[in-house]
Amino acid sequence: MPNVRLVIEYDGSGFHGWQKQPGVRTIQDELEKIIRLVLREDIPYVMASGRTDAGVHARGQVVNFKTAQVPDLRRLGYSISSILKGEVSVVRADFVPDEFHSCRSTKRKEYRYTILHRDAPAVLDRRFVWHVGGRLDVDRMRDEASSLVGEWDFTSMRASGCESPSAVKRILESELLTDGDYLIYRVVGEGFLKQMVRIIVGTLVEMGRGDITAAMGEILASRDRRSAGLTAPAQGLCLEWVEY
Amino acid sequence: MPNVRLVIEYDGSGFHGWQKQPGVRTIQDELEKIIRLVLREDIPYVMASGRTDAGVHARGQVVNFKTAQVPDLRRLGYSISSILKGEVSVVRADFVPDEFHSCRSTKRKEYRYTILHRDAPAVLDRRFVWHVGGRLDVDRMRDEASSLVGEWDFTSMRASGCESPSAVKRILESELLTDGDYLIYRVVGEGFLKQMVRIIVGTLVEMGRGDITAAMGEILASRDRRSAGLTAPAQGLCLEWVEY
Repeated sequence: MPNVRLVIEYDGSGFHGWQKQPGVRTIQDELEKIIRLVLREDIPYVMASGRTDAGVHARGQVVNFKTAQVPDLRRLGYSISSILKGEVSVVRADFVPDEFHSCRSTKRKEYRYTILHRDAPAVLDRRFVWHVGGRLDVDRMRDEASSLVGEWDFTSMRASGCESPSAVKRILESELLTDGDYLIYRVVGEGFLKQMVRIIVGTLVEMGRGDITAAMGEILASRDRRSAGLTAPAQGLCLEWVEY
Repeated sequence: MPNVRLVIEYDGSGFHGWQKQPGVRTIQDELEKIIRLVLREDIPYVMASGRTDAGVHARGQVVNFKTAQVPDLRRLGYSISSILKGEVSVVRADFVPDEFHSCRSTKRKEYRYTILHRDAPAVLDRRFVWHVGGRLDVDRMRDEASSLVGEWDFTSMRASGCESPSAVKRILESELLTDGDYLIYRVVGEGFLKQMVRIIVGTLVEMGRGDITAAMGEILASRDRRSAGLTAPAQGLCLEWVEY
């Protein structure tokens, strides 16, 4: 059976996240409905590299599905992008080997979290940033962000409903970039726990404000969610790319 | 009389441009109403560094107004940003000398125009870019963009309703930048004619597509609007800053 991979960009604002759930609008559900309609085939499901939470965006989410036909991928991409105009866009579409699995074959992923750090509220980027006013010790935040490179037990930084069997994750790159009034937290890892990036960012901001004085290493060592900071709002987070 | 300067950011999507006009919602009109309400004073008007067309955005528009009192600028900024939440934000507010005039005192301005150059439609930046698919000769566009530095007669590149007494304008910087799938046209000048930047961008895109073979110098020399390209859509344009 042909195995189709799509790279998609989406604005998470109008969805209750990636994963299908009864009674709410999700990206997985919308994609499956459109693909079944366009291909006139009851494909089993569309798999993604990982779930994204409600309100989280993606520039390069990777999904795949199996089909009994050899579809016109250009037409399929256009159909999805035009039915979900402004919300989901198919950036690339190709056939991949049968064993390709968008979730299990993942090697690395990059997330970016954007903070608008100024007193005036956000306007142009308001749906894609977390607005944080007041003073922040950006140097300290930068140092703490960099200290996350390595393999750690992230028990302190996972959401309560996280089902991952292991909390140990390897972080390959972790840095806080500054661009005018923007602070961009960029992280590359082999895998992430539920809400992990948002908790890292919330912790960095509380460190910047001086509300958390412990270092990242101490917070991780405590293996206690209460020692980390708040969960940063979903809208600042974007899945940038997935490598296989 | 105290002279107040505000630096404002706005999303032009919901406005019919800067300038007051009967029957439509404009930024000038909204600002004047709010300032009169907050200060409880019938201030004469709010002046900007220049009009922006319907749908054009600004990160650093500069406006000023005169008042009979010494207002609490922090409170005024908060009031404007919260009444026009997500649409207009006051980035800075200060008192300036009596002779400061946001329009006449202008020395230089920067505009940026963002093109999303890929086949897949825009999602995350859809309200702030012009989506251009297909092949573009970006090298040629870059060369032609750079060739605009200098003083030229822009009769070929002004909107029909332009009231400026002279079409001669000096361009200080003009370049096409690339950032992934984005093409950003950046221009700094002492002043601009009506729709001039959008016509420059439309002309660059038609050059990139091969639909215009004449060089910028020839188009300017023709002093004929028909020799230039289409007017690029307003939503890709943003007034970045104004220098005094």
